[in-house]
Amino acid sequence: MPNICLTIAYDGTKYAGWQIQKNAGTIQCEIERALRKILNEKVRLIASGRTDAGVHARGQVANFKTNKHFPLARLQDALNARLSKDISIVKIKEAHASFHSQYSAKSKIYRYTILNNAIGDPLSRNYYWKIPHKLDFSLLKKEAKVLIGRHDFKSFQAKSGLSPIKNTRRTIKRLSVRKKGRFLHLDIEANGFLRNMARNIVGTLVEIARGRFPANSMKKILLSRDRRKAGPTAPAKGLMLLKVKYPPT
Amino acid sequence: MPNICLTIAYDGTKYAGWQIQKNAGTIQCEIERALRKILNEKVRLIASGRTDAGVHARGQVANFKTNKHFPLARLQDALNARLSKDISIVKIKEAHASFHSQYSAKSKIYRYTILNNAIGDPLSRNYYWKIPHKLDFSLLKKEAKVLIGRHDFKSFQAKSGLSPIKNTRRTIKRLSVRKKGRFLHLDIEANGFLRNMARNIVGTLVEIARGRFPANSMKKILLSRDRRKAGPTAPAKGLMLLKVKYPPT
Repeated sequence: MPNICLTIAYDGTKYAGWQIQKNAGTIQCEIERALRKILNEKVRLIASGRTDAGVHARGQVANFKTNKHFPLARLQDALNARLSKDISIVKIKEAHASFHSQYSAKSKIYRYTILNNAIGDPLSRNYYWKIPHKLDFSLLKKEAKVLIGRHDFKSFQAKSGLSPIKNTRRTIKRLSVRKKGRFLHLDIEANGFLRNMARNIVGTLVEIARGRFPANSMKKILLSRDRRKAGPTAPAKGLMLLKVKYPPT
Repeated sequence: MPNICLTIAYDGTKYAGWQIQKNAGTIQCEIERALRKILNEKVRLIASGRTDAGVHARGQVANFKTNKHFPLARLQDALNARLSKDISIVKIKEAHASFHSQYSAKSKIYRYTILNNAIGDPLSRNYYWKIPHKLDFSLLKKEAKVLIGRHDFKSFQAKSGLSPIKNTRRTIKRLSVRKKGRFLHLDIEANGFLRNMARNIVGTLVEIARGRFPANSMKKILLSRDRRKAGPTAPAKGLMLLKVKYPPT
């Protein structure tokens, strides 16, 4: 039974996130519906992970099994013709039978974009968090480094009614902070992300860089394992799932 | 009487162009309405030129005269607070009394963006022309060079019911074609543009680069002074007014 793997880009602005929900449009729902029409078969997509409402992707990965033998290039064209322009199937390939978009993933890279300016950019207005305040860029970079490595990231896990994950240890492999004109890009690569972890890390770094949290407080916040010690959740629209990495096959 | 000069960025997707029209939202109309509310005075904006429906801008320039003495930074903030997020006042300054956004302009730079790929980019979907066909990039560059300099660009002037401009000689100072990943950027700097000139030039270059017009036909098309010899008008959404240049003051 072929195991088909999709790489997907989307603008999350209009959607209630990746995962199927009642009474709300989601990316998963749009793609499954298109697949059902084309393959004339009900199909269940497995993604590398959910993205929240308003979060974007350039490299979300999802796979599905099907009995239909459909040439892959034609399937990609048919999907892109059927999907709305805010969702694109960027790549399609057949994967090993055991491939699982979530469990096979080695790491994920999220990019968070900040516009550090009072003046918005009309041409990318759905893809950044606008911060008009002065940010201490070198402090931001220094405090970001504290998070690299294997740590308990419980301070950055969403406090929601949903059953939280018990094991909150993750490894951040890379956390780079770069200026690009008026924009800041924060790229976070980790072997896994807790719910809202990327956005809560960004929200905390910004509090420190704005001077609302004391300098060098990141270490203490991390060690506290207490969500209340960290900063607010950065807005969804600045976040983008850039890439999911898998072991070479 | 202060002469105030605005630099404006906008996403033209939702608008019927720059210039005020009956029964249609335009950029000029939005900004004049905001100015009237803030200054409590009717104000008339003079732009460097119109942009058509769906065309974008990063550096449109417009000026207006007013009797009100309003601190400029506060006026900029008030405008940006009032305007929709798809229009931004990027810069504001007081200009010389004789400054006129259109007549004082030395040159304008338009950028046309092509996505040379069958697969769309959801995150910039309103800002390019998607061409899935193979384009001969070096031929495109070579044919673009033919247009540089002072020429009669009548072949590229819109044939519309509106009274066409009689003097169709213009100077293209620069026409660069660059690849940027899957995108092509065509930057055209000229001392003035005829109606649809930038989009008609792009449409013609693409016909040649796709092999639908013979190689090296640009010279003949230019000399024909006949709109029917040139290619189709490229879609508005790929076009952006990047910058208007003025003599140093």
